[in-house]
Amino acid sequence: MSLNVIKVGGAVLENASLRQAFLRSFAGLPGNRILVHGGGRTATSVASRLGIETVMEQGRRITDAAMLEVVTMVYGGLVNKNAVAELQSLGVNAIGLSGADMCCVKAHKRPAGEVDYGFVGDVDSVNSEALSMFVASGAVPVIAPLSFDPSNGLLNTNADTIAMEVAKAMAAGENGREEVTLTFCFEKPGVLEDPEDECSVIPYIDSALYQSLKDKGVISGGMIPKLDNAFGALRAGVARVVITSAAALGTPAGTEIRL
Amino acid sequence: MSLNVIKVGGAVLENASLRQAFLRSFAGLPGNRILVHGGGRTATSVASRLGIETVMEQGRRITDAAMLEVVTMVYGGLVNKNAVAELQSLGVNAIGLSGADMCCVKAHKRPAGEVDYGFVGDVDSVNSEALSMFVASGAVPVIAPLSFDPSNGLLNTNADTIAMEVAKAMAAGENGREEVTLTFCFEKPGVLEDPEDECSVIPYIDSALYQSLKDKGVISGGMIPKLDNAFGALRAGVARVVITSAAALGTPAGTEIRL
Repeated sequence: MSLNVIKVGGAVLENASLRQAFLRSFAGLPGNRILVHGGGRTATSVASRLGIETVMEQGRRITDAAMLEVVTMVYGGLVNKNAVAELQSLGVNAIGLSGADMCCVKAHKRPAGEVDYGFVGDVDSVNSEALSMFVASGAVPVIAPLSFDPSNGLLNTNADTIAMEVAKAMAAGENGREEVTLTFCFEKPGVLEDPEDECSVIPYIDSALYQSLKDKGVISGGMIPKLDNAFGALRAGVARVVITSAAALGTPAGTEIRL
Repeated sequence: MSLNVIKVGGAVLENASLRQAFLRSFAGLPGNRILVHGGGRTATSVASRLGIETVMEQGRRITDAAMLEVVTMVYGGLVNKNAVAELQSLGVNAIGLSGADMCCVKAHKRPAGEVDYGFVGDVDSVNSEALSMFVASGAVPVIAPLSFDPSNGLLNTNADTIAMEVAKAMAAGENGREEVTLTFCFEKPGVLEDPEDECSVIPYIDSALYQSLKDKGVISGGMIPKLDNAFGALRAGVARVVITSAAALGTPAGTEIRL
């Protein structure tokens, strides 16, 4: 059985027309699906309305106790439940999950190093059995970027990382090896040769090209952890990884990552 | 198979020591369980921090679009996911649900009458099949007071009402009629003869006594819909309804409601 694990970012979810177009495409995809979502921009905006300052370090959110409350409300509540409700209205039997629900995404609190990220989790395991139970019953898991540490409770975890870990766990799952495609959907049409030119999508990136694009500075910043996640997933048995625009979901557009 | 449906209110969940004591008792209960929670006080406090005024009418929250965002964040995110995480740490395989998740609690938007409650839902049906699937798999549903209207999305619904509807649906469920006990846990030890005297718990209330207690004004205000819900559940086949303190869960204390 094939399975689509799809990650969609906050920038898509927070724009009503982009979100609706994405969710309609997602609803139209055939076969088994799991959705993983972000929501960082909404978290930043709700935090600011609550008088809580957002501090980012190397593109990642520093999560103190007040910020953990915000991301629990925003990722687990506002973004997750609204996505579930919109999908249900489109006929998709969605079920929203955090890492704590049925222990779907277990993690440990990242030890403070040069940077103390606070209540941030590094993933230890994904409960592929629970996710397979949902998928087998015809339900579509919608996963918020919150992981669960039995000793520390909920933790904030990057949504790209959760998507990669879910895809890896489902590819290695005990319930029959699944052919898993992992798709990162964002607001751009793929990895661009020239960030200013939306027509400069690079159709395929393998390890050698990745190295040369990094050396040339074509790939930099937040795209580097995304691509590292993509290669990590392929090395762990995920069949296919694609980076594409939310609007192009279900079409052959975008950038495919190859080992 | 017997099933405990337990409702716990916001006043218990918002006090760390009451909440921990309650969740430990809940974790220690034998057999199948479903938890339904409130969270109104936290919603009021988060709304106030966001500059959104809380308006109540006959004890019920008026829910405009801004307040719906707040209750979606607070009930579906903050309160629900933290309860799930605490239960998981206590060894309970909790799964948090709103009415939209697997369409657990379907409702319609209440038409504006003398009062326009806004985005408030009256329950039409509970997906007892999905809840039974969770219970059969050893999971414990933890249900937030948000219902789902396919035409209007998420709606705010009183947690006592959701608990009653869940208990009724499980008692009438197709998967073998369950013997269902519905317990309303709050901060008082039961229904009190004298609201100032915590030792004046009325052990049993039947329909005749209920009428006379209402006539005498002993039962008034927010206790009336709670008791109406209790009698409604009994008439619909729920085996037992108890109103008790969160701390006394699992003991024979409290007030039992009888037809």
